[in-house]
Amino acid sequence: MNPLLIESVRTENPLVHNMTNQVVANDVANTLLAIGASPIMAYAKEEVEDIVQVSKALVLNIGTITREVAESMKVAGKKANELGIPVVLDPVGVGATSFRQQIVKELFDDIQFTLIRGNSAEIARLAGVEWEARGVDAKEGTASREEMAQALAKEKECIVAISGKEDVISDGVQTVKVTNGHELLGRITGSGCMLSSVCGAFIGVNPTEAFQAVVTAHTAFAVSGEQAGKSSQVKGPGTFKPVFHDALAQVTAEDLSKEAKEETIEHE
Amino acid sequence: MNPLLIESVRTENPLVHNMTNQVVANDVANTLLAIGASPIMAYAKEEVEDIVQVSKALVLNIGTITREVAESMKVAGKKANELGIPVVLDPVGVGATSFRQQIVKELFDDIQFTLIRGNSAEIARLAGVEWEARGVDAKEGTASREEMAQALAKEKECIVAISGKEDVISDGVQTVKVTNGHELLGRITGSGCMLSSVCGAFIGVNPTEAFQAVVTAHTAFAVSGEQAGKSSQVKGPGTFKPVFHDALAQVTAEDLSKEAKEETIEHE
Amino acid sequence: MNPLLIESVRTENPLVHNMTNQVVANDVANTLLAIGASPIMAYAKEEVEDIVQVSKALVLNIGTITREVAESMKVAGKKANELGIPVVLDPVGVGATSFRQQIVKELFDDIQFTLIRGNSAEIARLAGVEWEARGVDAKEGTASREEMAQALAKEKECIVAISGKEDVISDGVQTVKVTNGHELLGRITGSGCMLSSVCGAFIGVNPTEAFQAVVTAHTAFAVSGEQAGKSSQVKGPGTFKPVFHDALAQVTAEDLSKEAKEETIEHE
Repeated sequence: MNPLLIESVRTENPLVHNMTNQVVANDVANTLLAIGASPIMAYAKEEVEDIVQVSKALVLNIGTITREVAESMKVAGKKANELGIPVVLDPVGVGATSFRQQIVKELFDDIQFTLIRGNSAEIARLAGVEWEARGVDAKEGTASREEMAQALAKEKECIVAISGKEDVISDGVQTVKVTNGHELLGRITGSGCMLSSVCGAFIGVNPTEAFQAVVTAHTAFAVSGEQAGKSSQVKGPGTFKPVFHDALAQVTAEDLSKEAKEETIEHE
Repeated sequence: MNPLLIESVRTENPLVHNMTNQVVANDVANTLLAIGASPIMAYAKEEVEDIVQVSKALVLNIGTITREVAESMKVAGKKANELGIPVVLDPVGVGATSFRQQIVKELFDDIQFTLIRGNSAEIARLAGVEWEARGVDAKEGTASREEMAQALAKEKECIVAISGKEDVISDGVQTVKVTNGHELLGRITGSGCMLSSVCGAFIGVNPTEAFQAVVTAHTAFAVSGEQAGKSSQVKGPGTFKPVFHDALAQVTAEDLSKEAKEETIEHE
Repeated sequence: MNPLLIESVRTENPLVHNMTNQVVANDVANTLLAIGASPIMAYAKEEVEDIVQVSKALVLNIGTITREVAESMKVAGKKANELGIPVVLDPVGVGATSFRQQIVKELFDDIQFTLIRGNSAEIARLAGVEWEARGVDAKEGTASREEMAQALAKEKECIVAISGKEDVISDGVQTVKVTNGHELLGRITGSGCMLSSVCGAFIGVNPTEAFQAVVTAHTAFAVSGEQAGKSSQVKGPGTFKPVFHDALAQVTAEDLSKEAKEETIEHE
């Protein structure tokens, strides 16, 4: 984790092109603004190339995917690859339907991702491991999340991040666990989607340190969640969300240094 | 009203498939999470059958309906009927356009609903009664809301719920009035849409007691509104919404027993 | 500025038809409800004529525009023109892509607007002036914003409003600057989109005083922002939004009289 990376997000104010789902679009935009980035949402195939080429990162989220938007995603992703702009995939609920699996397969065929970020069930599905899910929410599983992340990272030649009580981040060679966070992050919709876009912002301005950018993004997000959880304004999931956005706007590099709970996992 | 039904929602954490409108999707998801259910939104015709078959309820809301989504709704609704999964209809603004009336007619042709929930103007339109509306908001009318609910329930062979200052719920045989609630619920967008999805969650885990599930869902929603309205954090409609979501997460079966204001109406 | 115009919004509760973007739809609806208007969102070409004809204003926002919705906008806008219903254009990110420029060109070909409201970069693009933008956010420019507003107002024969730290509003003959506002309005997504729809509400009920309606809408919006910014409940952008909605619901004609910072610019 490199706490200074949050400074570069705030200084450079990166434009992040989000092709995200209808449920979370507003929260994703406000999360990016809070952390110091600049959100843009655009879906029309006629314009996604224009948008992506002025962006620092592209985030593809299949939460309410349709065939039409999937085709736009391919256009945007290919353009991003061509220009060396990092692309993040959030495979929301990929295990839920064969349609989502088909879409993700096509995206993998066409696009080289910098990061795949999902919950345990989603990453398990992509890694070909059994895992229980309920709709878009992960349940229990027995495989090692560290091994799953590492294996998928190797296979897809990118960073893989699994969110949960403990976040696991691997690029196939190194694997780091971030154990910060707050229970209420799991009680609001779209916290994973927001995190994916925050990762996009961090990678976007720190492309040569992408792995550290992803670890730092997870730390910043989770430490902000902890800070929000301590606020006397928070009485439940409803009041948590606005206070969490405040915390994202206020968290400092120093906070990250002080609060980060990080563990590097040795692979055998 | 059976206060214990809220416990089953929290224990069973039912997946609710929402095909809802773009305005309220985020609030609907957070409302379901708050009450203890699990939301999923999915619209593509290629996947709605896969989603609905793992869900405990399907909620169809026509607030920003398009022809394309209407066709997906039919596919999802038919599958739900085939599998005995309850389907809720929220006919948002059905009186506003002939297109919405046509869509609702087609949905009725293809799908047997468990519950139709709307405001007075929407239910009046479906019951063929005159009622004043402004866009998606109900205004004044002279018909008896109890009779309207009962008549439509008989005709469509399902439960009908009319929301307003007083909620009226009828299955054609029994009719119950719930008079809990708070004025600010009418000052935020989508409170009716949220309630429809909460009804889906309650029916989903209590399908053999569907009528009591709907009455209890209305009571839980309205009592949570009352509790939120009393909070010192609430100064208007903006601060009401997050506190209301907190209240939904905290309301207990005991609160419902103590606070419910319910009245059974004798039909002659 | 005519502070009494806010009273007419609250008394007449105008229905405002919004064809807005997916990111801000919820906030736009709650903003309109807070100020005393009635929001409706509808996009299907089959129904937009039915909706617009019962509305007091139509607001077209291209933030997540698609070809399909653009075609619906033309249908709605032409109907509004035919019936004398005011139409507002919010050209979100028009400089970002040639697709958005093409859409806006087509909208101008088909529709006479009452108001065009955007940030400096968007209005500069429409006025054919150089201006730096980042995605949907305006950056620096050197042209006079007053001259830009006036020139575009003359060309398009409508009111033009440029939002920013200082709002500039011109109908080509008279130009007014509103210098109220709060920094946090720029830290949340969609504040411009919300303002466009509030302008729609004010013009809708005060069509014969459209220029004063737009100035008053800007003042009401900005003064509410100032009031929210002073609240002890506000600790950052997250907690600002709900408190801002409260403030919109509470701001009075007297507040506007007392707090308005307005300046009339003499054109040579």
